[in-house]
Amino acid sequence: MKPLAVSLGDPAGVGPELICEAWARRVEERLPPFFVGGGAGLLREAARARGLGIPIEAVASTADAAQAFARALPVIGDHDGGYDPGRPDRSGASLALGSLKEATLLALSGEAGGVVTGPVAKALLAEVGFDFPGQTEFVARACGVAAEDAVMMLAGPSLRTVPLTVHVPLAAVPQILSTELIVRRARIVAEGLRGDFGIRSPRLAICALNPHAGENGRMGDEEQRIIAPAIATLRSEGINASGPHPADSLFASRARSTYDVAIAMYHDQALVPLKALDFDRGVNMTLGLPVVRTSPDHGTAFAIAGKRLADAGATIAAIRMAGEAAARRASCA
Amino acid sequence: MKPLAVSLGDPAGVGPELICEAWARRVEERLPPFFVGGGAGLLREAARARGLGIPIEAVASTADAAQAFARALPVIGDHDGGYDPGRPDRSGASLALGSLKEATLLALSGEAGGVVTGPVAKALLAEVGFDFPGQTEFVARACGVAAEDAVMMLAGPSLRTVPLTVHVPLAAVPQILSTELIVRRARIVAEGLRGDFGIRSPRLAICALNPHAGENGRMGDEEQRIIAPAIATLRSEGINASGPHPADSLFASRARSTYDVAIAMYHDQALVPLKALDFDRGVNMTLGLPVVRTSPDHGTAFAIAGKRLADAGATIAAIRMAGEAAARRASCA
Repeated sequence: MKPLAVSLGDPAGVGPELICEAWARRVEERLPPFFVGGGAGLLREAARARGLGIPIEAVASTADAAQAFARALPVIGDHDGGYDPGRPDRSGASLALGSLKEATLLALSGEAGGVVTGPVAKALLAEVGFDFPGQTEFVARACGVAAEDAVMMLAGPSLRTVPLTVHVPLAAVPQILSTELIVRRARIVAEGLRGDFGIRSPRLAICALNPHAGENGRMGDEEQRIIAPAIATLRSEGINASGPHPADSLFASRARSTYDVAIAMYHDQALVPLKALDFDRGVNMTLGLPVVRTSPDHGTAFAIAGKRLADAGATIAAIRMAGEAAARRASCA
Repeated sequence: MKPLAVSLGDPAGVGPELICEAWARRVEERLPPFFVGGGAGLLREAARARGLGIPIEAVASTADAAQAFARALPVIGDHDGGYDPGRPDRSGASLALGSLKEATLLALSGEAGGVVTGPVAKALLAEVGFDFPGQTEFVARACGVAAEDAVMMLAGPSLRTVPLTVHVPLAAVPQILSTELIVRRARIVAEGLRGDFGIRSPRLAICALNPHAGENGRMGDEEQRIIAPAIATLRSEGINASGPHPADSLFASRARSTYDVAIAMYHDQALVPLKALDFDRGVNMTLGLPVVRTSPDHGTAFAIAGKRLADAGATIAAIRMAGEAAARRASCA
């Protein structure tokens, strides 16, 4: 399998040290081969700060990276900088951006099996000319996919969930939701679970918007007006969609075994249960793209960077998930 | 300590069998003495259906109930009916209502230490003249407390949480929220945690409404307009309130240890994490009342009533929590 391209994330955040930690645990965690886009010198310092004496090796190609992976953490690309954890600045943001571009391009060209992006500081990135709400939109644009068709799925050991709306005020959610939106995204989710997770007939549980799923319109009618028609359309297409389910019972442990993904109507409806159940182990995966893309579902955590406190669980899970999806795509191509 | 009054709940639901199960496990679960308001014959049948050969004893007073508790499940009151699990009807609803009244009155008069209400079917209760949205409002009215000052708190082993709005459409939540509402309810919550849980300076974590707590107004301004001023007022009164916290990280395991109760802005914001973490063990407790009142946080579950499938965990937890609160009130009175 082709190695995965991992981007540094903001060099002042926890990204670099967690990549080093993941490489150090590659055997016990059975991680697929990966390399980092740039930052060889910086990674050396981050590894040292983390207490890891690991070799970092600059390589010229992904083929070389695959070869080197067993003996060293391979790095492709010349972008680099000093390691100053907890002190983000513009030059760090430029390095993060360079690393993201390097990693994404190698995945797009097919030389890398997929891309795993490290956590960035969006406000700082914007200051150095990054014109996207987040890395997901950047990768989508690079792939030529409309941002609304790049679907964020959060996945942890207990739960996969997709929020249909994300960074909007809660008051705007009822206006933004539409039958078309739900159908369009749910199709992408179903296809993603088939192609990247090998689930032949994925079970999609669609959340209600209102408490108790509105109780037949007594507490809101979006279930009847918007969500139920979407489910009917999906089912008519042969997609195994169910709901609208009252969200509070849908995330209870017994209910979770009845579906492969829960489709939530808004940010916190998906993120609250995911983080309550799987904090430190959540992976953000973008469905609907021609390339595999995952990311650990946490931020830069500047406050604990360089202090040996950050948990590598999500980074390891993101690399593993990308590797599994890439292997599945390669075997079905 | 005075025994607790337990109401049957709908006799066709899981209430009766779970009361019997709780009594059968009273020693291992170290439950305080309790009795049931009516239903002696029905409880005998429910116990048999559950496979429990437990003695049921009709008694005349709460003092007799306290005495009898070690040897039999005591019952006070003549209301009774046949046991027909899974088949709710009006006569059952009347029995549920009679039991609720009996139990509530004995708690109000001070003869019982508190009341634990079993699950009822609200639509059926309405058909037999019950003019309240739920049992909480009934108990509040009986106590002479305005319904808006009877505050529902949900508590499980992992989490205590209070939803500030409940059975309203999600779209209505931003309109209903106000600084006054938050302050008024939070005061009651703080007082309840002091008086009923013995927490001297309770830590109240107040949820944001919008994703990422609105990010300084970029995704909604309720945090700045409504929630932050409420927190400032509470703090000026010496109440240890913090926030507004982004809801998704607030329910993660590490965050949960930093507060005694999470105050949520809407139904699912509180109920999703509670049920994800503590399904089958959640207790609904009403704060702000002169009497202690708890309830298992589940419904009648007609579909599994009488089939030995229902889990008694929440009923046992509700009885234990009521007993602890009653003991604390008695010792401080």
